[in-house]
Amino acid sequence: MQIGMVGLGKMGGNMAERLRRGGHDVVGYDRDPEVSDVPSLEELVERLQAPRTVWVMVPSGDPTRATVKALGDLLSPGDILVDGGNSHYVDDQKHGAELAAKGIGFVDCGVSGGVWGLQNGYALMVGGEEANVERVMPIFETLKPEGEDGFVHAGTVGAGHFAKMVHNGIEYGMMQAFAEGWELLEASDIVTDVAGSFKSWRQGTVIRSWLLDLMVRALDEDPSLAELEGYAQDSGEGRWAVQAAVEHAVPLPVITAALYARFASRQDDSPAMKVVAALRNQFGGHAVTSKAGSAEKGADSPGADVTPPVEAAG
Amino acid sequence: MQIGMVGLGKMGGNMAERLRRGGHDVVGYDRDPEVSDVPSLEELVERLQAPRTVWVMVPSGDPTRATVKALGDLLSPGDILVDGGNSHYVDDQKHGAELAAKGIGFVDCGVSGGVWGLQNGYALMVGGEEANVERVMPIFETLKPEGEDGFVHAGTVGAGHFAKMVHNGIEYGMMQAFAEGWELLEASDIVTDVAGSFKSWRQGTVIRSWLLDLMVRALDEDPSLAELEGYAQDSGEGRWAVQAAVEHAVPLPVITAALYARFASRQDDSPAMKVVAALRNQFGGHAVTSKAGSAEKGADSPGADVTPPVEAAG
Amino acid sequence: MQIGMVGLGKMGGNMAERLRRGGHDVVGYDRDPEVSDVPSLEELVERLQAPRTVWVMVPSGDPTRATVKALGDLLSPGDILVDGGNSHYVDDQKHGAELAAKGIGFVDCGVSGGVWGLQNGYALMVGGEEANVERVMPIFETLKPEGEDGFVHAGTVGAGHFAKMVHNGIEYGMMQAFAEGWELLEASDIVTDVAGSFKSWRQGTVIRSWLLDLMVRALDEDPSLAELEGYAQDSGEGRWAVQAAVEHAVPLPVITAALYARFASRQDDSPAMKVVAALRNQFGGHAVTSKAGSAEKGADSPGADVTPPVEAAG
Amino acid sequence: MQIGMVGLGKMGGNMAERLRRGGHDVVGYDRDPEVSDVPSLEELVERLQAPRTVWVMVPSGDPTRATVKALGDLLSPGDILVDGGNSHYVDDQKHGAELAAKGIGFVDCGVSGGVWGLQNGYALMVGGEEANVERVMPIFETLKPEGEDGFVHAGTVGAGHFAKMVHNGIEYGMMQAFAEGWELLEASDIVTDVAGSFKSWRQGTVIRSWLLDLMVRALDEDPSLAELEGYAQDSGEGRWAVQAAVEHAVPLPVITAALYARFASRQDDSPAMKVVAALRNQFGGHAVTSKAGSAEKGADSPGADVTPPVEAAG
Repeated sequence: MQIGMVGLGKMGGNMAERLRRGGHDVVGYDRDPEVSDVPSLEELVERLQAPRTVWVMVPSGDPTRATVKALGDLLSPGDILVDGGNSHYVDDQKHGAELAAKGIGFVDCGVSGGVWGLQNGYALMVGGEEANVERVMPIFETLKPEGEDGFVHAGTVGAGHFAKMVHNGIEYGMMQAFAEGWELLEASDIVTDVAGSFKSWRQGTVIRSWLLDLMVRALDEDPSLAELEGYAQDSGEGRWAVQAAVEHAVPLPVITAALYARFASRQDDSPAMKVVAALRNQFGGHAVTSKAGSAEKGADSPGADVTPPVEAAG
Repeated sequence: MQIGMVGLGKMGGNMAERLRRGGHDVVGYDRDPEVSDVPSLEELVERLQAPRTVWVMVPSGDPTRATVKALGDLLSPGDILVDGGNSHYVDDQKHGAELAAKGIGFVDCGVSGGVWGLQNGYALMVGGEEANVERVMPIFETLKPEGEDGFVHAGTVGAGHFAKMVHNGIEYGMMQAFAEGWELLEASDIVTDVAGSFKSWRQGTVIRSWLLDLMVRALDEDPSLAELEGYAQDSGEGRWAVQAAVEHAVPLPVITAALYARFASRQDDSPAMKVVAALRNQFGGHAVTSKAGSAEKGADSPGADVTPPVEAAG
Repeated sequence: MQIGMVGLGKMGGNMAERLRRGGHDVVGYDRDPEVSDVPSLEELVERLQAPRTVWVMVPSGDPTRATVKALGDLLSPGDILVDGGNSHYVDDQKHGAELAAKGIGFVDCGVSGGVWGLQNGYALMVGGEEANVERVMPIFETLKPEGEDGFVHAGTVGAGHFAKMVHNGIEYGMMQAFAEGWELLEASDIVTDVAGSFKSWRQGTVIRSWLLDLMVRALDEDPSLAELEGYAQDSGEGRWAVQAAVEHAVPLPVITAALYARFASRQDDSPAMKVVAALRNQFGGHAVTSKAGSAEKGADSPGADVTPPVEAAG
Repeated sequence: MQIGMVGLGKMGGNMAERLRRGGHDVVGYDRDPEVSDVPSLEELVERLQAPRTVWVMVPSGDPTRATVKALGDLLSPGDILVDGGNSHYVDDQKHGAELAAKGIGFVDCGVSGGVWGLQNGYALMVGGEEANVERVMPIFETLKPEGEDGFVHAGTVGAGHFAKMVHNGIEYGMMQAFAEGWELLEASDIVTDVAGSFKSWRQGTVIRSWLLDLMVRALDEDPSLAELEGYAQDSGEGRWAVQAAVEHAVPLPVITAALYARFASRQDDSPAMKVVAALRNQFGGHAVTSKAGSAEKGADSPGADVTPPVEAAG
């Protein structure tokens, strides 16, 4: 079928390519004229036959909001707009309502798959009305991986990005679980083959997974991860997952801990820990001079400052 | 090669069977005479040719300790004892030292694989001296899955169970991540196909894994998990992982949160929350009468008890 | 000075009373005619001499939004509206901007003190422009406790409620810390005087505090808290604190854990734990029949199902 | 009454001084001859009239263990040994049993109060048999603060240090709660008087406490805590509290989070976060070059690498 694709970056470009290989007629628009099939959004809409389907694949937040607004002014009743970016499901609900008021259908689609998607297909989580999803189904069929999985019509408008958000939350938790396991193994005196332990887990264990495969590949390249700095950015989805959980009164201890670990990893010096240090100074007269060492006598440890142990005195 | 197997329950029995199919000469002992090849540990040791290899496969803790002690008195210098149970690595270190004093080798082996192991092989994580591990290698080769993974000589005595303990800690974190994701999806008004969302993730996503496969199978059988009660036991390994982390000053927020979620799930009524309720009663005169409802006016909310909203008063 | 007070519930009524005792001229409005000095918001505004100061003390959320909107239409340039309820600081920022467009000043004021406030004064955290705060200062002086503390002009519009929100977040963390301590003491076999331990901490310790005093009072009334159910509601502020932290990339592990403990306490059966139980069933063939007992053999514990320990077999 | 005091450091020395001011006959021993009343433990025991009471005030762990062992060989049946250090309650139970076998009584005493104790008294948490505690009561009476609190006979041997351990766990949680509150206030754009906010909370709020007083004092000296590094050591008690909780299946999310925050604060680079970074690199081809910035497009964000937003393309 015919589809307009807005945003031809690595993701949008690859998806357009996969659709063309699948026999679809793709008209692409990008602000980079080198890769764009049309000079403007206006011409994109003109080039498509009504009822149109336009897939928006631009960064979430303001860029997506601006694109949806612009297309809302250009499209006609009966057309469908698909947001395939990483939008917040709350944005979807606004967009869906605004477009519905104009008779334009809206479908949100969370996409996973990254650089492997062109070859292997993209996992798609879709939200929207049944009739609208049906209309876009030939596109979804081509984009998704072969096999029975990799696609879900998760619910009404917003449900696709909600499901993707939860997927990413689970991903945070799983990554942190592997990370903590690695740190504990590394801290052990008796385990000498940490990388080998991870590798061994790829068969016969409960935790075998694609992330474990990636972990093993990373350790193959750099067995002690010496080349890496210990910090990580976070994407909007992890934050949104926690905020959605708080709004729904759902306890999310593992996913939140994984998110917070990322926040903390980006701090050179923890502000909160300055307070703990300050309080310890206040009640114990602790000199805070060195990060070295581990457990020491507590702030209000009675034995903290006694003279050396009696056994040395014999 | 010849091996003695002590403990012929489902695990030990299956492992003995896999070893026999692999051409090894297994002499099994179990206190149940129906399944035992010999009437006593003494005869087991007698039946084996020196230098002997005896694999202990009994419950961790006191049973394993007693068995290792008994065998320590029966075996001879040059023999090797393998503890394939779920022992604490600290126990391994004690056992290793005690047996070494008698010239008996000790190898600890964490085993994963459960009911699938007989057919598919067992993942093995092994600790001990190189020479001792070498001696048991033909056994390990038969027990492990085909392929290049599923076995690691992780380090010195205790390292096998340490690695298995960490594996189980990671498993706790991963399971809890999936669990939290499910709870958040279920809490959403807009996601109507929660089971389908999980199923869709099996292809093309970052979180595809054996645990996800199990999750999908569980949801196939009972899509809303209505038949299950929401609580879970925990094994020693999860607790040991947290305690080892604390001892090594390693922060383990995700694995610990997963463990605590299990603890809390087994409480009919949270003792800690009684205290929170008590404090709220004290400072707010809160009547604590019903679990219904979610967010309400906080303990020291100024507006908590004002008369109804002004807009109704018009 | 003269002030209009909108909302004469327990908080607003007591504050009006404290202001009158302090010599201020308070005109109160409430939709309950029994307690109201004027029959409508319109008459309230008429009764006040310009430039007016109106204090809004109604429930946060829609009631406050509606009241601020209504007053925005009635007040005149140069007047000041104070929101003393529990509003979200984001609402304050909207209200401040809307009123500023009409020349009306806006001050937000987080209030702590509850039922003791009438007698002892209310802790006030204030946000707004310097000039506006100055104008309301005589009112703040009367409402606050005697002494040098209990009042802060924390920053610009929203800062008062932001500070109050953080105060409540800290409160959550402190309450949960006491709660966990109590639970751990109760779980001990060797500590027989738990209530006495808390009482003893009121002197000479690091944790002495008003919350500890309340805890001791609660334990005096019911030493084992047997009369209470172990769950707790949460107010908006705790949730907002976590959401604000996530937005600012600030890790808040303790405050979030305290909030999640409240969420979990209100669930009869944890949805997440159903998933954990389901997964354990899948890989271990675990029968899930009883909450009794604590640590048991793990899901993929090799020794979980061996025959009884060898030592019994002797 | 007469008492031997072993360990005359700042804590032991001050306690000896407070006891002497209270009219007791204190014979002190320290391996530093400058401060010691007797040249050896042997002479200390000789100088005391049977039945003797000896208070051990040396660092916990090996020094205390060695001192208890040495005194166990020197004391006589009917004597009592008090361990006033920071011992693990598990050590107490061993020491109590060993001494009981010799007819020597054992009492453990957790002490709080630090440098203020000489003047204001020490909070004492005591474990042991009723008769033994009774015998030492005159000493406890003098050491404790005036007033009805500051002392508890918490239970059997070990209960005193168990209660002190829990006290310190609560302390960790409270400190971290204040610390997180400070970090969130500091992160806000609208709150400009963070130190003033803390100061204001000293009156009329739920969180007023000695720790808040210390916090205000610290902020008086250094309002933005600019002179401090953001890390903190931990004492044994915090670790023991978490380990005891795990052993008793008690969830301790807040206290554990506080402990882990300290662990993490001492890491220059988080090992776990190297793994997260490695995994992100693997699946996203992420360049990991800079800690700057906060939320960015997630690892498998489809829109992460699209060309700039369409609105700029107009």
